[in-house]
Amino acid sequence: MWPGCGASTETLPKVKLSEQLPEQLTYLFEPRSIAVIGASNVKIKWGYIIPVNILAGGWKGELYPVNPGETEILKRPCFKSVKEIEGDVDLAIVTVPAACVARVVGECVQKGVKTCLVISSGFSEAGAEGMRLAEEVAGVVEGNGMRLVGPNTMGIYSGPARLNAMMSPVRPAAGKIAFAAQSGNLGTQMLSIGKTLGVGFSRFVCIGNETDLKVADYLQYFARDPATEVILLYIEGLKAARRFIEVAMETSPKKPIVVLKAGKTKAGVRAAASHSAALAADETIFRGVMKQTGMIEADTTEEMLDIAKAFAAVPLPRGNRVGVITWGGGWGVVMADALARHSLELVELPQEIIRELDSFLPPYWSKGNPVDMVGTLDLSIHFRCLEIVSRCGCVDSVISLGTIGMISSIQSFVLGDSTLDDVERGRTATKVARSEFLKEIEKTDEAYRGEMLRLMQETRKPIIAVSFPATGAVTPVLASQSEVVIYPSPERAAKALAALCEYKKFLEQKCNTGA
Amino acid sequence: MWPGCGASTETLPKVKLSEQLPEQLTYLFEPRSIAVIGASNVKIKWGYIIPVNILAGGWKGELYPVNPGETEILKRPCFKSVKEIEGDVDLAIVTVPAACVARVVGECVQKGVKTCLVISSGFSEAGAEGMRLAEEVAGVVEGNGMRLVGPNTMGIYSGPARLNAMMSPVRPAAGKIAFAAQSGNLGTQMLSIGKTLGVGFSRFVCIGNETDLKVADYLQYFARDPATEVILLYIEGLKAARRFIEVAMETSPKKPIVVLKAGKTKAGVRAAASHSAALAADETIFRGVMKQTGMIEADTTEEMLDIAKAFAAVPLPRGNRVGVITWGGGWGVVMADALARHSLELVELPQEIIRELDSFLPPYWSKGNPVDMVGTLDLSIHFRCLEIVSRCGCVDSVISLGTIGMISSIQSFVLGDSTLDDVERGRTATKVARSEFLKEIEKTDEAYRGEMLRLMQETRKPIIAVSFPATGAVTPVLASQSEVVIYPSPERAAKALAALCEYKKFLEQKCNTGA
Repeated sequence: MWPGCGASTETLPKVKLSEQLPEQLTYLFEPRSIAVIGASNVKIKWGYIIPVNILAGGWKGELYPVNPGETEILKRPCFKSVKEIEGDVDLAIVTVPAACVARVVGECVQKGVKTCLVISSGFSEAGAEGMRLAEEVAGVVEGNGMRLVGPNTMGIYSGPARLNAMMSPVRPAAGKIAFAAQSGNLGTQMLSIGKTLGVGFSRFVCIGNETDLKVADYLQYFARDPATEVILLYIEGLKAARRFIEVAMETSPKKPIVVLKAGKTKAGVRAAASHSAALAADETIFRGVMKQTGMIEADTTEEMLDIAKAFAAVPLPRGNRVGVITWGGGWGVVMADALARHSLELVELPQEIIRELDSFLPPYWSKGNPVDMVGTLDLSIHFRCLEIVSRCGCVDSVISLGTIGMISSIQSFVLGDSTLDDVERGRTATKVARSEFLKEIEKTDEAYRGEMLRLMQETRKPIIAVSFPATGAVTPVLASQSEVVIYPSPERAAKALAALCEYKKFLEQKCNTGA
Repeated sequence: MWPGCGASTETLPKVKLSEQLPEQLTYLFEPRSIAVIGASNVKIKWGYIIPVNILAGGWKGELYPVNPGETEILKRPCFKSVKEIEGDVDLAIVTVPAACVARVVGECVQKGVKTCLVISSGFSEAGAEGMRLAEEVAGVVEGNGMRLVGPNTMGIYSGPARLNAMMSPVRPAAGKIAFAAQSGNLGTQMLSIGKTLGVGFSRFVCIGNETDLKVADYLQYFARDPATEVILLYIEGLKAARRFIEVAMETSPKKPIVVLKAGKTKAGVRAAASHSAALAADETIFRGVMKQTGMIEADTTEEMLDIAKAFAAVPLPRGNRVGVITWGGGWGVVMADALARHSLELVELPQEIIRELDSFLPPYWSKGNPVDMVGTLDLSIHFRCLEIVSRCGCVDSVISLGTIGMISSIQSFVLGDSTLDDVERGRTATKVARSEFLKEIEKTDEAYRGEMLRLMQETRKPIIAVSFPATGAVTPVLASQSEVVIYPSPERAAKALAALCEYKKFLEQKCNTGA
């Protein structure tokens, strides 16, 4: 199907590229036209799956299938070569076998294709022959004006363009986070998990082998991208560390960069070498770079989304002083420990605030911070505590434990009409699951969420909720609502808040040193 | 309603209690009869809610409402005093105001009630007057043969008895974990979260103020309880530390004890003092105690359930050598780091195993551990890898990343009948959610889960799955299946496996020292 494989050795005029990068990558993330080279009618081939994902995702533009052995693919006329296409091609997606890639990429250069994304694997991650093929591709691309993603990439996503040019059918939630990942599997699954947890993305790129475009290039693009407010990176190793550090230092004061560095241990480095063929950076050096550049380190894959979502959703705290409102004392103790572990201050509330709270809280409340509402079922108390603590001048951020998701479920049970009749007829269990009950939960949670939003807008302080996934109902109800953050445990909320504080401190230091 | 409040000061013969403890607590967790003192027809009172929870939970036994102002409650004749009840009372649940508690508890002693659970709050957690009332209750109970839970408890749960004698309507999943918590709110919500995550419980007690029964007492009961295989404790502080350590040392070699110690930081200690009035133990001392007794420490509330579930579901590994199978390379790198952080060995697989895997895996697989299946969609390869790695003599435990939950979703999409027609008619999105698709996921996940179970039974090695919560479908499908463990991230799987290894090592040391 792909005869005459072998690299195109034509040489073309070299051009200087670095300043043009943001414009070049706009062709990648906002293409008006896409050629799929290796397009197929065979449903289990990536040459079929990827264009289906693109069309299913809602992208509006010209799609050109390219395959010398077909006349029509996906009801579109098929081209024998990318060079036969009359219109401009902003992005070429290549799925042909590794041995044919250099040739078709060469044709893309000749055609004047702006960007090229090589799905095909079998390059530097695949032994000596793969290395040779990779060098061939690099030679074809270098200095010829066209930029190349991969090879060995799972593709890209672009929210504003409604573009899902990926092997995975995932359609991420729209949002403000741009994500570059040195793993397609981990990256695309993060997009899926994000959809479940209400974490929305502006852009995503599975970086692949970095024959041309590297982490630093995507970072540079995201830094200027108006659709992006937060940058998330999954890094196994760096090929051009110096440039990465330079771009990170320039970007970090403008947009927070959250990084998970994998391949930190000896075992991880070995696994990374076999996976992405990336040279893993020494951990001590990497830590130093993180500190110097102001990037925020996520310690676990869960933290990547936890922290990125916090940056995308809530304002930065002015300082480390935290006010905690809790429905139950135990969670307050756990929260206090978690805050202390991250050097966040469970601030002492002023006497006038204590007196105000004391005027309506149940008599045995904690009379301090955390404000323990001792299990009160009266929702109005939750709202009043939230307002008073949020407005308190000595509080920089607020964490609200347990109200969203729980109060309504208990309240419905208590104030509902469960009677002995129900108990004796075995109806209690089914009643709990009835749809009015779920609607009641949604209504209460919505109201509290609305109050969190209102107070965040008025006070410009981050207000973070912790809701325990007890009923299973909370997640679907609130997942799509990316304007608030709701974590499933106090410890995860503390970690995310600590990341916000760390970044705020970095910005202040930058500001003070006049950098 | 509760006239004549004030402590009963009658003195009764003192009896020695410690040896009788397990028998005494059997009355608590397996009561044949329950009196609710303070029972009510008012639906927002605990005196109504708690008996409804008991009846709704399915407990079969004699329920006696006690309230001098009522004649019938929940269609049962109401008694003016517990002393009026003719039959034996194994458990009395007290919901009357704090000031009346000592009197009704005194009546329980006179009646010969075996155990008493005091829901009422307003005791040692509530200032000087509360302290006085607490001392009064203690005086009534001490040495009189009746054991007392609380006061200020949210109640107990007992799986084998189908008993939910709690303020919360939660009906936990049945299982092998006994849980004692110094926080009712945190404790009962853990039961609810457990239900969502497939973590089942044998017993639960909200410890309350420990006027009589203390953490150590419940621990002693759980140690001999045939329904319990794993013990979970949430501790803020210890009132009888020496006895606790003695009981823990005796119990730990028989059943694993997983502990979350809250109130470890200064802020946490302060919060704990206001919450449970417990004296927080110094952290260094507590760490020492953990090591000496062989108890397993959970660092976060999420880890409590993660670790307890692992102990309840899978066999202990013989050693630290781990085999990892992953659908994608990135997750393998993250897993390698996470294992190394817990001193678990990503073992080098023997050449014959590598050769065997090489005979059927895609050409660019990792050729080492983690076994990276490089995104293969062929499920039979997943099954073969699982079997080969599990049976490998140099592997003590196996972690399988990404197969459950993901392979089926991708496979359905790829091998399904998505066509341009669907794309153009906008049907792709709805098709993904159709019920046959969900059934397909269930079927595939079930098959893989069955294979994990079969291999665990044959090899006696723990096999742990990581499934990313991408579709949201996995959790409900597998949540109720407590025979396997499925974690939402590599890091959480590594932590749980590390806990199993730590306990195994403790047992071996015990064995070697002949202790």
